[in-house]
Amino acid sequence: MIRQYELTLKPYPRGYHLITGPVLEAIETLPETGLLHVFIRHTSAGLTLNENADPSVRVDFENIFNRMVPEDEPYYTHTMEGSDDMPAHIKATLLGSSVTIPVTHHRLALGTWQGIYLGEFRNRAGSRRLVITVYS
Amino acid sequence: MIRQYELTLKPYPRGYHLITGPVLEAIETLPETGLLHVFIRHTSAGLTLNENADPSVRVDFENIFNRMVPEDEPYYTHTMEGSDDMPAHIKATLLGSSVTIPVTHHRLALGTWQGIYLGEFRNRAGSRRLVITVYS
Amino acid sequence: MIRQYELTLKPYPRGYHLITGPVLEAIETLPETGLLHVFIRHTSAGLTLNENADPSVRVDFENIFNRMVPEDEPYYTHTMEGSDDMPAHIKATLLGSSVTIPVTHHRLALGTWQGIYLGEFRNRAGSRRLVITVYS
Repeated sequence: MIRQYELTLKPYPRGYHLITGPVLEAIETLPETGLLHVFIRHTSAGLTLNENADPSVRVDFENIFNRMVPEDEPYYTHTMEGSDDMPAHIKATLLGSSVTIPVTHHRLALGTWQGIYLGEFRNRAGSRRLVITVYS
Repeated sequence: MIRQYELTLKPYPRGYHLITGPVLEAIETLPETGLLHVFIRHTSAGLTLNENADPSVRVDFENIFNRMVPEDEPYYTHTMEGSDDMPAHIKATLLGSSVTIPVTHHRLALGTWQGIYLGEFRNRAGSRRLVITVYS
Repeated sequence: MIRQYELTLKPYPRGYHLITGPVLEAIETLPETGLLHVFIRHTSAGLTLNENADPSVRVDFENIFNRMVPEDEPYYTHTMEGSDDMPAHIKATLLGSSVTIPVTHHRLALGTWQGIYLGEFRNRAGSRRLVITVYS
C-alpha cells in the first residue's frame, strides 16, 4: 500500500533546520511496518538525517559546508543567480534530495538522536515543497 | 507491485550528464502513485538530482568536485588504476549510488528544475549499467 | 510484502568496513524481485556502497574524509564530545544514513565491485544498530 502527501514548508532562513515535526504532522498515521520517503522538489536545498538535540551541531553544519563549498570562486561559471546559488547546488547534492526511514510499530525507527534536517542553502528562499510517500 | 528494468547507458565522457530522458524511455509506463528507484552498478560513477536547465551548473560540478577531491595526493595508496580512480571512488560516495523519486499521477514528481545526473568520474569509462525499479 | 530485521553490528574501529556479509546473514531469503533498504540508527556513522575488493580504497577513504572534514577547527562550537565528534556528524551526512539496493532473482543486484560500507567515524564507538527492510 502506498500513500502520498504534499507538504509545503514555511520559508526557513539559510541554515539547517529540524523538520521531523512538520513531516510527521503531514501524515495521518504510520503503518505497522513500512518505509517513509521524504523528497524535496528543489535543487538548492537538501534533506539529511542528523543530531536532533544540541543546536550547535546545526550551526557547525552551516560553517563547515560553507568552507567546503566556498562562494565566489573565480572559476565558477554559473553566477547569474547570486553568490549563494552555485554552492547551493553542490550542497544539495552532498546532502541529497531525499531520506528513506524505516517504520516499525507505527513509528519512525529513528535512532534516539536522529532527526530530519532541511538544509536551506539560499540566502532568501521561499517555501520549499516536499513529497512524502509512505509504503507498507 | 514491483517492476524492474535494466538500462545500459551509452558511454559518457568524464563530467555530469542529464539522463532523465534515457531513464524514462527505459520504462513502459509509470503508475498512478509510487516510487522510482534508479541504481548504478559501479563504484566510480554516481547518481544525483540537480539543475536540469543551465549547462553551466554541470561544468561547475566537475570543477568543484575536482578541487574537493584532488588527484595525485601524495598520501593516496590506491593508485594502480590511474590518477582519476581513487577520486572517482570518493565522488561516487559523495553523490551516492541511487536516487529515489516519487511518482504522482503517472509522472515523476520532480521539481521544475530537477533532473537526474550521471556523474561520470573516470577519464575513459565504458557503458554504465543501471537497474531501475518502479514500485506502486 | 515487507519484511524487517534488526541487526546489531559488532563494534568496529574508526574507518571503513565491508558489511555486506553480516547484512545478508541477517536476512532469511531475498525475494525474486524487490528492494533492500539498510538504515543506520546513528548520527556519527554512515552507510555507502563502494569498492569491495582492494582494501587500500578503504584506507584512502579514511584519509581523504579526514582532510575534507578536519578535527579541531577553531570555529567549531559543538566540541563537548571530543575532537572526532563534530567531524563524525558531517561525515555521516556526506555518506548518508541508508542504502537502497535492487533485488533481482533472489540476489542483490550489486555490481561486481560493489559492497556495503559502514563508515565508523568515532574513535571508540560501541555496537551500531541497523534496520533492514526488504520489500517485494
